[in-house]
Formats: sequence, structure tokens, C-alpha cells
Amino acid sequence: MTGRNGGADLRPIPGSPVVVLVRPQLADNIGAVARCMANGGLYHLRLVAPRDGWPQQRAWRTASGADRILDEAAVHETVGSAVADLHRVFATCPRPRHIIKAVLTARAGAAEIRAAARRDLRCGILFGPERAGLDNDDMAAADTLIKYPLNPEFDSLNLAQAVMVMAYEWWTADEPTPARQLLTHKTEVATKAELDQLLEHLVDQLDACGFLRNAPKRPGMVRNIRHLFQRGEVTKQEIQTLHGVITGLSLGRRRLGRIEPEEVNPDL
Amino acid sequence: MTGRNGGADLRPIPGSPVVVLVRPQLADNIGAVARCMANGGLYHLRLVAPRDGWPQQRAWRTASGADRILDEAAVHETVGSAVADLHRVFATCPRPRHIIKAVLTARAGAAEIRAAARRDLRCGILFGPERAGLDNDDMAAADTLIKYPLNPEFDSLNLAQAVMVMAYEWWTADEPTPARQLLTHKTEVATKAELDQLLEHLVDQLDACGFLRNAPKRPGMVRNIRHLFQRGEVTKQEIQTLHGVITGLSLGRRRLGRIEPEEVNPDL
Repeated sequence: MTGRNGGADLRPIPGSPVVVLVRPQLADNIGAVARCMANGGLYHLRLVAPRDGWPQQRAWRTASGADRILDEAAVHETVGSAVADLHRVFATCPRPRHIIKAVLTARAGAAEIRAAARRDLRCGILFGPERAGLDNDDMAAADTLIKYPLNPEFDSLNLAQAVMVMAYEWWTADEPTPARQLLTHKTEVATKAELDQLLEHLVDQLDACGFLRNAPKRPGMVRNIRHLFQRGEVTKQEIQTLHGVITGLSLGRRRLGRIEPEEVNPDL
Repeated sequence: MTGRNGGADLRPIPGSPVVVLVRPQLADNIGAVARCMANGGLYHLRLVAPRDGWPQQRAWRTASGADRILDEAAVHETVGSAVADLHRVFATCPRPRHIIKAVLTARAGAAEIRAAARRDLRCGILFGPERAGLDNDDMAAADTLIKYPLNPEFDSLNLAQAVMVMAYEWWTADEPTPARQLLTHKTEVATKAELDQLLEHLVDQLDACGFLRNAPKRPGMVRNIRHLFQRGEVTKQEIQTLHGVITGLSLGRRRLGRIEPEEVNPDL
């Protein structure tokens, strides 16, 4: 799942939310966050009071090419200043306490951000510092909380992982990829007629070699073979290959003078 | 989104798939993978030919407490041996080429793994090495491919991030958390009658202070106030607080002898 598509062409996607890292501690994590943002099509990064100052060269080393996101990251002294130009602010929060505010799943949050952007509202998402998370004052700057559904027995989420989940949900909230597809590359899925021709070829050769000589069992055996090849989509290329396999096996046996029907097992 | 729920109580959740890291290079990443697995409720980890051998103490340092997953990780020499006891094998693959096989999104893959587990089929998910990803032979060991929908302009995904997305999707595939909820903690959402009493209290006091003295505008102003408080769920605790605020403001002004209706703005 790795790869090396560079980040030289990264640019903001209209409506993508601002990622606000509140008091981030480790430059390595800030770089990893930039990489995750790029994976999910996010671009705008703001840092509130980064512990070790900014810029930090270590961040560029872990960004894996998402340099532009770091180059254009803005530093703010307070959360209030970082969100001042936004219309909607979401705060990620693993264990909201003493707060009475709507809490969304990451998926519902992403959908709400997409919907707000369609109304030209600028959105931001707050992520807390590595150890402590957002404090109560930080969360008061948000109108909506986001809590990821994750294992309550182990909810210590790395900062970059937290950004990854939101970026992934933001991307997939508007993603037209079909849930299931068959990659066929240069070939195409075969029609049922093409599959039928293959099965006829196979049954002919199985008749010829005596594999189907048990007359009472023959219909069931043929049906079982049909079911096997009908289990999913088959491509035109695969049909061709299988024609060749059948021909090759039957000619090969004939050529070698090894037509010994009693060897093959009729209990398919 | 960080936290420190320890991993001492981690245990396998029935039906959770095996994570198979194929030729992983960096121990840091293996530890980060274990942490992500724990976040998403996964437990079974297998390592195929880890580059630097196994165990590597660095892995435990980045696992953030998910030690048990590393303690019980199994090492295999080949992908074939790592998947031998499984019924279904999925391979994560950012750019499937020359392969004719079903390709699922991460979400559809997670749903299929859940469905297979309900039929008592053991599933595994292959993740490739950091740089090159899975090779063609690795992918031939899988029956189904999984390709995450992510930014095609930047699909270089860190190994732990790749595991995080699958673990998150696996967890959420069976997660009953409502998409939106209001956390009210010890209080409850107020009824409409309780809200009405509050609004009556407010309107009474606004009448008393002269804020609503413009008779033609009064019905619209009252309606606007109602709309403002009707915008979302309000809790019983908040209703109480607001009663106190109204009483406090009106008594305070009276006590200070500052009832000056011409000061307030009737254009609400």
C-alpha cells in the first residue's frame, strides 16, 4: 500500500477543510500529518503554538514529499486566531467530558464538512497535542465534536493516525469508486455465450477422454463444472487461455498415447 | 485524539482478521502497526521474512502499549506459509496492474471480512513492504484485492497508515455508534415544555425591561428568539442556567437602578 507519487503537484482542493494542530510537540508528527493530509486530499495546515517552534527541518523529512503543505503551513499563537476566519469548527476528541455538544462519528463529520463546503462555509478540524489532547478551552472554540468509533480498550491514537482517519473519511465522503470492481486491464469480462462455448469445449473433451462416461452421474457432473466456472466474472482473455488449456491437455494426452480413462476420478 | 489507554488487557476479538506484513523493513513501523491494530480491535500479527529479523526491541517502543500483539506475532518464511491456515486472503494494493481479480474498497473489504467471519472463515490481509509494496507473486496468494480510495496525486501511504485505515474500517463495519449524538453526561435533553417555560420567562423579563415595547415588531422578535433557542437540543441543565441568567440580568439591572429601556436595541 506504499508508493512514491511525489507531492510536487499538490494543490488545494476547493472545499477541503483546514487541519489545525493545537500545540503539537514533535516535528516528526507534523511531517507525518502533512503526508496523511496529502493522502486524503487535504492541504491547509495551521499550527497553534508548536512546542519546538517552526519551521523544523525534521518535519520535511517525514512528510515523504508533501512539502508544499508544510511550506504553506501557518503558525498561530492561539486557537481563537487559528479559527477566526472559519465558519464551522470541529474538534476531534476521544473522551468528551463535561461538554454538552453534538458528537459525530468521523464519517458523519466528514459528510457534514462536505455539506458545509457546498454552502461555501469554510471548515476546520482541531487536533490536540500528542499527550494530553485538546483541553476544555480548545474544545469551546469548536461547534461540533468528532469522536472516532475505535476500540475503547485501546484508544491511544497517534496524531498522524488521527489525521489519517479524518482525511480518509473526507476523501471517501465524495468518492465515486464502486465498492467492488474487477480490474480487467486490456481485456473485458466475457459474455455468457463465450463462457458457454468454453464449457461446451470442455465437456466435449471430457466426453472424448471418458471422464464423463458414467451416464447417470453425467448431468450432475456437467452442472458442477458449470457452477465452478460461473462463480464470478471471467474475462475474454481467460476464456481464451482455458480453451488453450483444454486443447493442450487433450492433445497432449493423445500425442503421448496416454488416454487411460480409468485413471481419472469421475466423482467430481 | 490521543490518550493512554494501556494495552495490558488486549485480547483477540473473535473473527478479527490476521494482519500479514510481507517483508517489512523497519521495526518502528512494525510497532506502529501493532498500535493501529489495537486501535481497530485487531490482534493477530504475522511477519513474513522481516528484513532485520525478529524480535526487534524498537518495535515495542513504537507500539505504545500494544505489546501483546508484538509478543504473540508469528514469523513466517513465505507468504504461502503465513496464509496456509486461512480461508480468505485479501491483499492491499495501491496500483493493481496485470492482475485480473476483484478489487474492493477498504470499506467493502471490511464488510466482506465481517461476513466471512460470520461463516467461520478465517481471513487475512496482506500488506507489502514499505518501499515496493506487494509483488505479483504475493498478490497471487490473495483471492481479493483491496485498493483504498485516496488522492491519486499522492498515494504514498505509510505502512502503519495503511493498517490504520483497514483496522478502522474493520472496527466501524460492526459499530453501533450513532452518526450524531448529544453528550449530556449527568443531565438530559430538555422537553419542549421546559424550553417553553424558559422562553416565557425570558419574554416576561424582556417585556418588563421594555425591550419588546415596539408592539408591531413584538411578535416577530419573540419568534426570532424562539428560533434561536430551538436550533438544537437543549439540556435541562442549560435551561436551569438560562433561567438563572435571565433572572440575574433583570434583577441586577433593577438593583443597580439602571432600567434604561432606550439603551437596548429593539431591532433583534
